[in-house]
Amino acid sequence: MIIGIDVGGANTKISSADGSIAESYYLPLWKNKDIKSLLEGGLRPKYTGADAVGVVMTGELADCFASKGNGVRFIADAILSVFDDVHFLDANGTFVSDVSEAIASTNWVASANLISTEFPDALFMDIGSTTSDIIPIMDGVPMAAKTDFERLKRNELVYSGILRTNVATILDRVMLDVPCRISSELFAITADVYSVLGEISEDDYTCETADGAGKDAESAMRRLARVVCCDMKEISPQELRQIAKQIKEHQVQSLVDAVLNVCGRFDCGVVIAGGLGEFLAEDVARRVGLKYISLSNRYGKKVSSIFPAYAVARLLETSRRVNPSTCHDLNMGKS
Amino acid sequence: MIIGIDVGGANTKISSADGSIAESYYLPLWKNKDIKSLLEGGLRPKYTGADAVGVVMTGELADCFASKGNGVRFIADAILSVFDDVHFLDANGTFVSDVSEAIASTNWVASANLISTEFPDALFMDIGSTTSDIIPIMDGVPMAAKTDFERLKRNELVYSGILRTNVATILDRVMLDVPCRISSELFAITADVYSVLGEISEDDYTCETADGAGKDAESAMRRLARVVCCDMKEISPQELRQIAKQIKEHQVQSLVDAVLNVCGRFDCGVVIAGGLGEFLAEDVARRVGLKYISLSNRYGKKVSSIFPAYAVARLLETSRRVNPSTCHDLNMGKS
Repeated sequence: MIIGIDVGGANTKISSADGSIAESYYLPLWKNKDIKSLLEGGLRPKYTGADAVGVVMTGELADCFASKGNGVRFIADAILSVFDDVHFLDANGTFVSDVSEAIASTNWVASANLISTEFPDALFMDIGSTTSDIIPIMDGVPMAAKTDFERLKRNELVYSGILRTNVATILDRVMLDVPCRISSELFAITADVYSVLGEISEDDYTCETADGAGKDAESAMRRLARVVCCDMKEISPQELRQIAKQIKEHQVQSLVDAVLNVCGRFDCGVVIAGGLGEFLAEDVARRVGLKYISLSNRYGKKVSSIFPAYAVARLLETSRRVNPSTCHDLNMGKS
Repeated sequence: MIIGIDVGGANTKISSADGSIAESYYLPLWKNKDIKSLLEGGLRPKYTGADAVGVVMTGELADCFASKGNGVRFIADAILSVFDDVHFLDANGTFVSDVSEAIASTNWVASANLISTEFPDALFMDIGSTTSDIIPIMDGVPMAAKTDFERLKRNELVYSGILRTNVATILDRVMLDVPCRISSELFAITADVYSVLGEISEDDYTCETADGAGKDAESAMRRLARVVCCDMKEISPQELRQIAKQIKEHQVQSLVDAVLNVCGRFDCGVVIAGGLGEFLAEDVARRVGLKYISLSNRYGKKVSSIFPAYAVARLLETSRRVNPSTCHDLNMGKS
């Protein structure tokens, strides 16, 4: 069995290459860096038969690490201490055994490379819990910049997701009877917005709540009320739903702006979208006039939601099938 | 001795009516609600001679409280358990002994009422660690709305301060060689911005850092770099200072917009400004074409930085001098 691991800042995701296993574990590295215990205790028994492990990551940016280099080494060491045959995908889409910053911020690389085998000209979108990747693929090659910094400049990385994003980073006023400024505290997150709008369930709400209280829609309403410094008795449920809709609209429009910018540089005929926030992508594609293909429809919702882990497993499987000796060499190079 | 206490969400401030004592203690209620221990252990010995205690608060909005009513009661109970003769200022500027939501969000009420005795027509600004109050005073009467919700709508409360504000709530792009999107994580706060710009010292940086690391300018630079997903080697100190300047400019402009809106409704001839962020106010006043009076110049920097605590002590002192029986009655009403 080939497995893929995607270590994000807030979630570690694991998938088998056949998609039969596709799991996400909430592990916010800035609070708890114990990736090793997660892999050893909870997961390894399931994967004792793993022939090889493909790895991508973005968690190196978490601010528990003084630098991304430190983060990469910490994450790689944790995985190498648990599994034997480990292959890191680098920013060019090549499997390597060397641990260096070339393997930082690679989860979109896995997804886009897998997508490109089927759709050589497309715009791949992964709308996640915290960020959204917008990756142009031309002639079978992912064309995004290689670092997060450059991708932020090119609208290929939008730091906005459907669970963990502080709503105060999305807009600075909501429209009620008059425009109303909002609190800049971490009082509510996008998970509250989509909970109130009925777009995610309590099971989908996989991160912590801002106030440590429940993940039910009523608690989410209370947190949204606090964003305008209100108790529930000061504001109506209708107004709170209005606020949630406005936050969603700003988030969708921000994605639309980014997609339009990327499409101004690359002629992408179709949007291929996955991730927990895939439900926003159809609207984005419609607004920019592009066709839309859902990864959930093709692979199932579970695989779509952890797509980079699945993709790196698939890519490693293909790589070993095509050129077993390369993989052997890579593995040898490690020890 | 008369003392004033201002319990904010992040800081509890204490002052004597003569201003000889003016102190601020970092006590983020959502992490540690033990106001009682702070008052008893650290502070009470200093104030054993206190004849009476005036109280204002804003900490009831902290999301450790299910409602503002709960927060008010918790904070009031903590103070009543430590001091005997306690007087709460209500939203109308009256001292009361009843604990109700009428005493919520009152710190600006104390400041504006004290200022109004000297400046009957003015715009009072308190630029704090987390929020900025913009209070019009006409004919000696503070004219701001009575709740935070209404003040947010009227631009009398801008949820932006010079220490704790997540920079990602202030802007969504910075201009480098090209516009660059930013991370929405809590990677850096305004204290980092003003540290990098040399406007605050390490001693002024009284809140926690986002990454738990140092409060020195170099650590602040590293946190600002992370806002554009960079390690220090990916971005120059010049670019980071540029980012800091842009965040400051957005924050100042947001205050200018709010002041212009308030001045459109009230003809305020002069800005009277205090708070930790007083250093931004002169620029704001100049941009809107108003004269400017600094509370630091009149009362000293320490008193300016905890002005509501000082003001409520002064108001209570005056109230007792004018009508001692009222205060006696108030106190009796409590027991």
